[in-house]
Amino acid sequence: MEHFTDGQITRGKQSLIFENPPYIVSAASVVGSKEAEGPLGKLFDMTNEDDLFGAQTWEEAESTMQKEACVLALGKSHIKAEEIRYLFGGDLLRQGIATSMGVEALQIPMFGLYGACSTSGEALALAGMSAAAGYGRYMLAVTSSHFGSAEKEFRFPLGYANQRPLSAHWTVTGSGAFLVRAAEEESPAEDPYSSEPAETDVDTSTLSHVRITGVTVGKIVDYGLKDSQNMGACMAPAAMDTIVQNFEDMGWNEEDYDRIITGDLGNVGQSILFDLVRGKGYDIRKKHLDCGMTIYDRERQDTHAGGSGCGCAAVTLASFILPKIEKGEWKRVLFVPTGALLSTVSFNEGASVPGIAHGIILEHF
Amino acid sequence: MEHFTDGQITRGKQSLIFENPPYIVSAASVVGSKEAEGPLGKLFDMTNEDDLFGAQTWEEAESTMQKEACVLALGKSHIKAEEIRYLFGGDLLRQGIATSMGVEALQIPMFGLYGACSTSGEALALAGMSAAAGYGRYMLAVTSSHFGSAEKEFRFPLGYANQRPLSAHWTVTGSGAFLVRAAEEESPAEDPYSSEPAETDVDTSTLSHVRITGVTVGKIVDYGLKDSQNMGACMAPAAMDTIVQNFEDMGWNEEDYDRIITGDLGNVGQSILFDLVRGKGYDIRKKHLDCGMTIYDRERQDTHAGGSGCGCAAVTLASFILPKIEKGEWKRVLFVPTGALLSTVSFNEGASVPGIAHGIILEHF
Repeated sequence: MEHFTDGQITRGKQSLIFENPPYIVSAASVVGSKEAEGPLGKLFDMTNEDDLFGAQTWEEAESTMQKEACVLALGKSHIKAEEIRYLFGGDLLRQGIATSMGVEALQIPMFGLYGACSTSGEALALAGMSAAAGYGRYMLAVTSSHFGSAEKEFRFPLGYANQRPLSAHWTVTGSGAFLVRAAEEESPAEDPYSSEPAETDVDTSTLSHVRITGVTVGKIVDYGLKDSQNMGACMAPAAMDTIVQNFEDMGWNEEDYDRIITGDLGNVGQSILFDLVRGKGYDIRKKHLDCGMTIYDRERQDTHAGGSGCGCAAVTLASFILPKIEKGEWKRVLFVPTGALLSTVSFNEGASVPGIAHGIILEHF
Repeated sequence: MEHFTDGQITRGKQSLIFENPPYIVSAASVVGSKEAEGPLGKLFDMTNEDDLFGAQTWEEAESTMQKEACVLALGKSHIKAEEIRYLFGGDLLRQGIATSMGVEALQIPMFGLYGACSTSGEALALAGMSAAAGYGRYMLAVTSSHFGSAEKEFRFPLGYANQRPLSAHWTVTGSGAFLVRAAEEESPAEDPYSSEPAETDVDTSTLSHVRITGVTVGKIVDYGLKDSQNMGACMAPAAMDTIVQNFEDMGWNEEDYDRIITGDLGNVGQSILFDLVRGKGYDIRKKHLDCGMTIYDRERQDTHAGGSGCGCAAVTLASFILPKIEKGEWKRVLFVPTGALLSTVSFNEGASVPGIAHGIILEHF
C-alpha cells in the first residue's frame, strides 16, 4: 500500500497524517474467564479463571491485568521498561486508579488519560503522535476494564444480582497494551520479512508490518440521550461523527478501508451508526465490525448488547485485529474506540450521556 | 535569555526541549469567593460570590468555570473555538465529568486527562508537545477543581461540617485555561513589543513573551504513605523526583531557574520537599514557591496546609506566574504541578497514596 504524504501533517479539521508513521511492534492482551470462553478465547495472551489474578479486590485485579499486559508487550519485543520514554494509560474507574496502581511498578514517565471506553484510541493517538514527533523511540499505550470493578463503580454490587435490559453492555474484563516504536530513517535490520509473507508463515507474537499512519481526534457529541443502560445509542453519534470526519478530512470513503472497527457500540449502537452514517451519504455496512459484538457470543454468553469497557477494544485490537493487519489480510483499518461520558453523579443529577470516539488509521506496510 | 537547542529534542531520561518552543498567548482564571478574598484576589479574571456560577449543582458549577475559562482565554486573543486544533483537559471528579460537561459546548476535538492535581502540568505538556510537533497552530489546555464537588467526591458532604487536621488541604474552586500557539518561522507581525518593555508598560491580558521551552514528564512515586488528609507528604517525593530529574536531564541546578513552583504541596509538603531535595545535593529553598501556599492567606483564611486541586496551580499560573514571566521579572520558571493518586475506593481498600508531578519549563523570550 502506497503511503501518501506530502509533508503536510494536519488534514482537514481534526486529523493528522504522520510523515514517517510509527510502528506498533508488539501488543498483549490479558482477559478474564468470560472473554476466554468467547469467540476470541484462544487468541488472548493470558487468561485467568477467577478474574482476580491473584489479587484481593476487583480494582487490584484490574491493576494486575494492566501490569501484566505491559510486561507481556515489552517481553515480546525484548524491550525493557527503562527503554520506554512515555506511557499513556487509562481505565474506567474513578480517578483512574487501576492505571495508577497498575503501571506504578514499571516506573515509566506517564500521562494518565480518561476517555471512557474510547481511551485505547486516545492512548494510541498520543503514543503515535509522540513517537512520530521524535519525543522518544518507544511509547507504551495501555487501557483496562474489569466487569467486577465497573459494576461496582457504575451500577450495582455483583451480589445484588440485578436484572439488565437487553440494551445493556457487559464490561469486558481485560487489558491491552501496545508498544509503539518511532520509524527509523532506514528500515530496521532485524526485520525478518523482506517480502510479503504468506499468511501461514507469519508469527504474530511480534509485529513489524503495522503502522499508525494517522489519527482523527474526536470531539464530544451529545444527542441528549440519558439512558446509561443503552450506551450504544449514546455513543453511536460520536462514532458517526469521527468516521465521517475522517472521510472528509482525508478525502476518503468506506472504499478506502478494509475494515472500519468501532469499540463497543453493540448491536443496538451499530444499527444506529449505520443509519446516521447513511444520513451523511456513506454506507459502511459491508466494512463495519464492532469489538463489543466480536468478543462475546451473544446468544451463548448472554451478554445482551455486547462487550464494553476500555479493555474491550484494546484486547480485540491486540489479539484479533493487529494480527490480520500484520499478515496483510487487511491493508488499512480505521479503528474507532467509542466512549460514553457519564458518572454516577452526572447520571443522578439528570445530565445526558454524551459520547466521544477517536479514529486511528492502522496500515499494513 | 539564550535558548539552547542543538536539534536534539529528547534530554536525559524524561525531558524534552522544543527546538521551536510554542507560546502561551493567553490565559484565563475563574475562581470562587474564597480565592477572590485571598492574596491573589484582584488578579483573577472572573469570580463568583456563591461559588455556583448560576448552576444548580457543584459539578455543574465546575463545568461552567471550565467553559468560562476557555472562552475568556480565547477571547483575550480574539481566537474562535473553531481555530483550536485540540483541547487537553481534566479535573478531579470521577470519570472527569466536569471537563466532559464543561468543554462540550466548545466542540473542540479533545483529549481527556487525569493526573490528579498535576493535570494542569499534564495538559500544558501535551498542548506544548502537540503545538511544537506541528499538529496544529492553536491548542487549549484547561483544568478545574471545586471545593464543593471535591469534598463530595473525596471526603464528606459539606453539611456534615467535619473537623479537618492541620495537614489537610483546601480544594481551590477555580479553573485555568491556557491558549498555546505554535511558534511561527518568523516572529509574528502583530507582536507589539519590539524591545524589552518596562514593567509598568506591560498589558498582561494577552501574552507574547512566554514560551514553553521544555517538559519533564513525571513518573509515579510511592513512598508508601496512606494518609489522604496529608497529601503534601504524599506528593513531596514526586515533586522532588521530577525537579531533580529535570536538573539532571538538563544539566542544570536551582541557579538556572528564577523560580521553581510546585502545585499544591502546602507547608507540610514544602518542608519535606526541601529535605528530600537536599538529600540529592540541591537546595531550592531560595527559589521555591508553592501555588497552594500562595493562593490563600493561611492565618486569615483558615485553610490549614494550603490550597489544592487541579484548579490551584492552574489559576495561580494564569493570574500570578505568567504575568511575571511576560514582564521579564522571571526569566525562567520550572512549573511543577503535583498530584496525589487516590480514590475513595483505593483509600478504603488500604492502598497507599502515590504522587506524580510534571515539570514545565516556562521562559521569557
